[in-house]
Amino acid sequence: MLVSCIGQENFMQTNEYDLVVIGSGPAGQKGAICAAKMRKKVAIVDRRLTMGGVCVHTGTIPSKVMREAVLYLSGLRQRSFYGRGYVVKDRIVMSDLVLRATAVMTREVDVIKAQLRRNYVTALEGDAHFSDPHTIEIVNEGGVQRVCGEKILIACGTRPSHIEGIPVDGKRIFDSDQVHCLEEIPRELIVVGAGIIGLEYASMFTALGVKVTVLDQRPTLLDFVDREIVESLCFQLRQLGTVFRVGEKVVSVGFDDERDKVSATLESGKKVRGQALLYTIGRQANSDHLRIETVGLTADGRGKLEVNENFQTAVPHIYAAGDVIGFPALAGTSMEQGRLAGCHMFGKPSVMLPNLIPYGIYTIPEISMVGATEEELTRQKRPYESGLARYSELAKGQMLGDDQGLLKILFDPDTLKLLGVHIIGDRAAEIVHIGQAVLAMGATIEYFRDTVFNYPTLAEAYKVAALDGLNKL
Amino acid sequence: MLVSCIGQENFMQTNEYDLVVIGSGPAGQKGAICAAKMRKKVAIVDRRLTMGGVCVHTGTIPSKVMREAVLYLSGLRQRSFYGRGYVVKDRIVMSDLVLRATAVMTREVDVIKAQLRRNYVTALEGDAHFSDPHTIEIVNEGGVQRVCGEKILIACGTRPSHIEGIPVDGKRIFDSDQVHCLEEIPRELIVVGAGIIGLEYASMFTALGVKVTVLDQRPTLLDFVDREIVESLCFQLRQLGTVFRVGEKVVSVGFDDERDKVSATLESGKKVRGQALLYTIGRQANSDHLRIETVGLTADGRGKLEVNENFQTAVPHIYAAGDVIGFPALAGTSMEQGRLAGCHMFGKPSVMLPNLIPYGIYTIPEISMVGATEEELTRQKRPYESGLARYSELAKGQMLGDDQGLLKILFDPDTLKLLGVHIIGDRAAEIVHIGQAVLAMGATIEYFRDTVFNYPTLAEAYKVAALDGLNKL
Repeated sequence: MLVSCIGQENFMQTNEYDLVVIGSGPAGQKGAICAAKMRKKVAIVDRRLTMGGVCVHTGTIPSKVMREAVLYLSGLRQRSFYGRGYVVKDRIVMSDLVLRATAVMTREVDVIKAQLRRNYVTALEGDAHFSDPHTIEIVNEGGVQRVCGEKILIACGTRPSHIEGIPVDGKRIFDSDQVHCLEEIPRELIVVGAGIIGLEYASMFTALGVKVTVLDQRPTLLDFVDREIVESLCFQLRQLGTVFRVGEKVVSVGFDDERDKVSATLESGKKVRGQALLYTIGRQANSDHLRIETVGLTADGRGKLEVNENFQTAVPHIYAAGDVIGFPALAGTSMEQGRLAGCHMFGKPSVMLPNLIPYGIYTIPEISMVGATEEELTRQKRPYESGLARYSELAKGQMLGDDQGLLKILFDPDTLKLLGVHIIGDRAAEIVHIGQAVLAMGATIEYFRDTVFNYPTLAEAYKVAALDGLNKL
Repeated sequence: MLVSCIGQENFMQTNEYDLVVIGSGPAGQKGAICAAKMRKKVAIVDRRLTMGGVCVHTGTIPSKVMREAVLYLSGLRQRSFYGRGYVVKDRIVMSDLVLRATAVMTREVDVIKAQLRRNYVTALEGDAHFSDPHTIEIVNEGGVQRVCGEKILIACGTRPSHIEGIPVDGKRIFDSDQVHCLEEIPRELIVVGAGIIGLEYASMFTALGVKVTVLDQRPTLLDFVDREIVESLCFQLRQLGTVFRVGEKVVSVGFDDERDKVSATLESGKKVRGQALLYTIGRQANSDHLRIETVGLTADGRGKLEVNENFQTAVPHIYAAGDVIGFPALAGTSMEQGRLAGCHMFGKPSVMLPNLIPYGIYTIPEISMVGATEEELTRQKRPYESGLARYSELAKGQMLGDDQGLLKILFDPDTLKLLGVHIIGDRAAEIVHIGQAVLAMGATIEYFRDTVFNYPTLAEAYKVAALDGLNKL
């Protein structure tokens, strides 16, 4: 059976859709649902066992679930009350950390499937690739199935890059997808790559008492984040024993002769040894499996696709969203990209305001930000003033045992308009949304001064920061 | 030395102030600081050991610190992962729960003192009472000191009511101020009075595995809170074994003959027995120590003072704020009352918008709300629609082990304007402030639909609820 979908009659056959989405991660889901809500006929394709994408299966969900387990079982936040040596569980093993991930993942897949079903999105299982610009072939055990889409959304996600010469064995030298399959928690860990993923895992293992060494060739970590916040993160991780070696390239990674140690060799010849090594440099987009050349698309060396502000690729009816288009590759942002792509393709344009996109980085401590950084404002020659609140000044910060948290607001000294919010500390990713709402409405920091906050909360930090800022004027 | 402050020369003597504040709890502090920021000369009076008021010493702070300890040590939220029998500590003793309170209280008192000092507020120690409408006598070991204030702010707070016939011994029959001095955690606890304080402690002891029975003569608990939220609280507490007996008055409380049990007798003659009893019916305002009759003020039977919308008592230069003026007697609200009183008395009027006052109730699970309830809107004959988000649908809810949380938004079905936010579940008191900002700006629930939220967060509940609500239209 060979079906060409182009130039057919105007009634829709069962294998014809208004939109075919490749990949069911955050971007794919939200793109599909957005179109479905406009009463479009939508299919979403993913491999049988990976509905929900990397996000649910090896990425966001497992790492964030593990993070909750680490926070709890390590007793990290309890040490200010019960002493430095405090741990809930004397010997935390890997299964303690991943135990709950399965439950949460299963539940999350159910939620996603139910959402798609409720919106009449057809879920198809198999490996997808293009056979022509409107036709996707789906290969699974049952054979090959063809579906046609007036529009296509590529939301195929990424996988860890495996670079030649890095002997990843999934046990002693592993990538971020393999963390959850580790048999034991290493005593020492080398983390190669200090991006978001590298730092998230580095901080988790640090909290568990692992001796962590972070290597990255970039001299500046998380360059899109406020400097004061990044320095606070590094300071707090160092206090727990993390070693940073940045600004120098890792030239090779391997096992020692006796295979009892792994090591990373730096450009200068220095050798860093440890029991295990997490390799998190870069991710390869899965676009290389899609035969995009068939439709005239090309990707960069990492498989990333270029899109315009409407998330259209060079082929206008083919959209791309999520990790496959690169930075920031955060689930929340990917969802919005998917939704905006879905809106645009069916004539309901909507724009994403870049200064309203929050970033949530789930290191321990958590980092979150929205709006401009001091660095950006300085580059734009835009004057600003800042207001600070330290969690140690907040009753709730003390209660939670987080006495190093910090919330910083940036505002226009003339109009008092809020320009940016930068937070490091517990619940940062939640409370940043208070500032985001104020930013979105174009309101001034007087709002924080004049608002009643529940007591005790971390949200009160906004009031403290606003008073601090206003006092500086 | 006898000083009359009335009709003096126009220069200010050392014992003369623009404002004298009686009580250094949340209302007193913020009133004092507000006036000080307007460059007024301010004194604040409190007993030596109670700087910070009930809030820091026996009320909000110790109970909320204990709550964090309970949440952590009981492992309540971990049970969905590790099984129903999971506890961090096999035998939790009272000292585990109060251990951290002292550290937090000490730190909080330091923060308050530093804040007052930074704002040049004079702190005076002793018992205060009026000697004339502008003069306060302060009695301490050193003798009697007199200070005069052009304005006076009464923020003297409350204490648990001790009613004749209730044999409070602080051990087996105790009030909320005495919880922290208990020698052991009882196996069974009768809580008489299901107000905010009663329910907060009932839920904490329930989480600890104590068999709790809650008695209250009111048939409806927390009548200012959304019914669905209150019912969810009762349901969740019942699931953990709490028994509610409401709508019937407790006529007597006492020890059994053998003194091995305490009991409460209900109007119908039913007797509820237990190992210990927490009596939380009502609080007596400390105005009875202030000799308010000297200045022509009268209080109600519970010592509460009546004030107008500017927090002025019947004597216009004497203001009152905080618990002494009654409901809601929450720290966040008291701070705002104090601030508004301070603003008004020195000619900088400012109003409190009642629909923007959040309520935070630190039961387990936590409850928070802002804006109108369904009941209020129905009374006002104002049409509304609601949107729901269940924490079980949120990845973060699952990660935190809170699968019964609920966020409900109420909005105008025509204009889509947000009217109210009602939350039960983890971090409710934090995330309510996102909705509060949207409510304050008069924005619509489309804001939630169109906003990028960090993933995973509980804040995402707003988006889920908005989509649910919009789908109903």
